[in-house]
Amino acid sequence: MKLMTPPELEAALRDIGARRYHRLHPFHELLHGGQCSKGQVQAWALNRYYYQATIPAKDASLIARCDDAATRREWRSRLVDHDGEREGEGGIARWLKLTDGLGLDRDYVMSLRGLLPATRFAVEAYVHFVREKTLLEAIASSLTELFSPQIISERIDGMLKSYKFVTAETLAYFSQRPPLAERDSRFALDYVKRHARTPGEQQQVLAALVFKCDVLWAMLDALYHAYVAPGQIPPGAFIPED
Amino acid sequence: MKLMTPPELEAALRDIGARRYHRLHPFHELLHGGQCSKGQVQAWALNRYYYQATIPAKDASLIARCDDAATRREWRSRLVDHDGEREGEGGIARWLKLTDGLGLDRDYVMSLRGLLPATRFAVEAYVHFVREKTLLEAIASSLTELFSPQIISERIDGMLKSYKFVTAETLAYFSQRPPLAERDSRFALDYVKRHARTPGEQQQVLAALVFKCDVLWAMLDALYHAYVAPGQIPPGAFIPED
Repeated sequence: MKLMTPPELEAALRDIGARRYHRLHPFHELLHGGQCSKGQVQAWALNRYYYQATIPAKDASLIARCDDAATRREWRSRLVDHDGEREGEGGIARWLKLTDGLGLDRDYVMSLRGLLPATRFAVEAYVHFVREKTLLEAIASSLTELFSPQIISERIDGMLKSYKFVTAETLAYFSQRPPLAERDSRFALDYVKRHARTPGEQQQVLAALVFKCDVLWAMLDALYHAYVAPGQIPPGAFIPED
Repeated sequence: MKLMTPPELEAALRDIGARRYHRLHPFHELLHGGQCSKGQVQAWALNRYYYQATIPAKDASLIARCDDAATRREWRSRLVDHDGEREGEGGIARWLKLTDGLGLDRDYVMSLRGLLPATRFAVEAYVHFVREKTLLEAIASSLTELFSPQIISERIDGMLKSYKFVTAETLAYFSQRPPLAERDSRFALDYVKRHARTPGEQQQVLAALVFKCDVLWAMLDALYHAYVAPGQIPPGAFIPED
């Protein structure tokens, strides 16, 4: 292992995204290509809700481990983005507008009763990773945001065009995200480029991004298995009406 | 919620097993019915290795939280069963005889490089559950052992009959397990029947068993998705030769 320059490290990170980010997953092709049934879109939104709702706890764990006020302050903006300034605002509330718009009962969504266990395990793996690994690795694991503006624009275009049951209003979550994701990922990328100073630390940073790509990928694998093919829904999970 | 008698609690636990234990999973039907390719059996053994190898850490976490020497002593026998008295003995070593017998490279298996991320997330969810929930819930989550003697006998019979690449020697792990599982599950069942003294505690015990069934089920869902149908192997995971 040799020490990479910061631009080389960035290139290696972007290469991981190009090969492993969930934009490449077959479920996303179906979702964005308009080939999902309403029930499949519901299952996706219901499961992804748990990810959205858990992100602030993940971010708070990260802040809790940080001994530098500037980094804590910067990271705090993520809490604001997700939880909002007051009831009904923020990313989680906007996600619930999506599940509302898809006809899912809000109490049912928030109860997590219909969640795929694999979703729960993947999301909690992310929380535990951030809690237990080094701060550098915790920050690096957020770097999937580098690749999200592209997937979000594809998603908005594809879903609005293809699904009568989806409106611009229900997709408000996504229209708000790209500038926030760009700001956040710029900070995190700059942080890892400055703080990964040994070959070992650089490898940890790369592995953290691979881990996070695996989390997102595993969530879509589970959706595909349960709701597309072979369509084996695990005991207790959400059963679409269609 | 009303308080169940101990026999009613036991019946409710057995009912969960009858509905949610992974013996009912389609992957097990294929595996025991002789319908798996060698590569699919390899993928199963490789992924399940991580579960086996992680169990002693799970059990040690449980012992670490126990303030009663008798319970610690009883639970310690699980460490002995899995780790053995010396190198080459115990359940993990016997599991590696299975992966050896299936033609997998031992270093590759132990490196975990080919693991499905979903396997890792499910197994680690179990470890975290035992570490973070109450001792009662931690003990209750082991109760899938109540149902394992039956699955193991089906597995030995079905695999020996169906697969030329499987021998009684490579299945040594399974021939040793049933009496140990019976002893362990008898202790754990007796423990939860004695210690779950409120309706709330009884519901926690039931939920812990549901959780553990979900862990085992999710592991097979991931195998099925990657190696049976649609056969979408996640980036980086084991690729069978056949």
